[in-house]
Amino acid sequence: LMCASAEATIREGKPCKRIVLHYHDIIFNGTNKENATSAISANATALGKFKFGQLVIFDDPLTEDQNLLSPPVARAQGLYFYDMKSTYNAWFSCTLIFNSTQHTGTINMMGADMMDSETRDLSVVGGTGDFFMTRGIATFTTDTFQGAAYFRLKMDIKLYECY
Amino acid sequence: LMCASAEATIREGKPCKRIVLHYHDIIFNGTNKENATSAISANATALGKFKFGQLVIFDDPLTEDQNLLSPPVARAQGLYFYDMKSTYNAWFSCTLIFNSTQHTGTINMMGADMMDSETRDLSVVGGTGDFFMTRGIATFTTDTFQGAAYFRLKMDIKLYECY
Amino acid sequence: LMCASAEATIREGKPCKRIVLHYHDIIFNGTNKENATSAISANATALGKFKFGQLVIFDDPLTEDQNLLSPPVARAQGLYFYDMKSTYNAWFSCTLIFNSTQHTGTINMMGADMMDSETRDLSVVGGTGDFFMTRGIATFTTDTFQGAAYFRLKMDIKLYECY
Repeated sequence: LMCASAEATIREGKPCKRIVLHYHDIIFNGTNKENATSAISANATALGKFKFGQLVIFDDPLTEDQNLLSPPVARAQGLYFYDMKSTYNAWFSCTLIFNSTQHTGTINMMGADMMDSETRDLSVVGGTGDFFMTRGIATFTTDTFQGAAYFRLKMDIKLYECY
Repeated sequence: LMCASAEATIREGKPCKRIVLHYHDIIFNGTNKENATSAISANATALGKFKFGQLVIFDDPLTEDQNLLSPPVARAQGLYFYDMKSTYNAWFSCTLIFNSTQHTGTINMMGADMMDSETRDLSVVGGTGDFFMTRGIATFTTDTFQGAAYFRLKMDIKLYECY
Repeated sequence: LMCASAEATIREGKPCKRIVLHYHDIIFNGTNKENATSAISANATALGKFKFGQLVIFDDPLTEDQNLLSPPVARAQGLYFYDMKSTYNAWFSCTLIFNSTQHTGTINMMGADMMDSETRDLSVVGGTGDFFMTRGIATFTTDTFQGAAYFRLKMDIKLYECY
């Protein structure tokens, strides 16, 4: 039998906690050091025309509304890479870091970012601090995409396991 | 106390769901664009003779039998890299993407792929859709290995947490 | 309702298992093949002066005390990369591999390694073998840091879900 002595709630229909954030990624192009929040760590390969194999490492601000200039409420640190030869498609793994009066702690997530889908679900696989041991789903929506310079994602984080 | 209101089953001896798939990886060599399913994103280093540091990004078909030409029932998107100087040994992190009449959703996994062992266990750390919040073990077996051109793994996925 | 039939214990205050290990990372510099345990797979970018984008792949020994020469009780295989432009800061994902009389199996973890913090918590997201399906927190502390040549971390692994 499973014995559980921490407070946890698992409820598929209704998350025990829900946080909606906007993720802003400004790719370093060699001249935008001040503004850039991510950089290409490994270049795209010649397999197709959709950056297959390009690996990007980021330290991106997360805001409550869509405005890039709003004060960040958290940061996302991690990586994504492009992984299809027929379309733009990515894979993410990152940590959301909260250090505010509202939340302290981290949320760890990973999964496929199928950019052709209007929404796509990734897995929240763990957390620390206020998010101790949490699990759930992060639903990504592309807010906007400006070529290779900037994109913004909506991350709708639904936690179903809370302690 | 842990309070759980979604339907979940955890049973070590007997998985709540089991899926056996074969993973086919055809590495891009510069001339096989049509067939290639993966590409080297970062080259091997000079540390040893076993590709230490080589990073491969893939979008690989998964079939129910061992035949590369069988219709894929899912795809695996993610990365692996070689990480030992004394033997071929890898580390995987990927998402299995199902989009068929049988299953819709994703399974996220990660872990060491100790290629010298006949079988090795990785962790299923989350899922979405039909595999909402799942956890379990993915047992890898090398079906075949044809130099740097192609290899096939059997993935025996045992889910012990199902909602 | 969640139904659980494997033996598991979740207890926030008191881990069901605790393991303290020291992680030794000796970076390959081109001439130290014998001793090196990690290698730079992708070089740092020009974004800042803190190795932003540098990706390191490792197969590092884990010892019970701080002594690099003590017999390893496990190995850590995985990756880390630097991801801030204003300070040294990293992100980790790896597998601890145990194969001794004491423990057999693996522990998978990931998370932000905020090197400016005296301690930082990462997520244990799964395990295999003796650590079947485990979850918890890995608290990192920097024991020592010798430029680009060597660093040592204390990993205080607290498992709150044990089967």
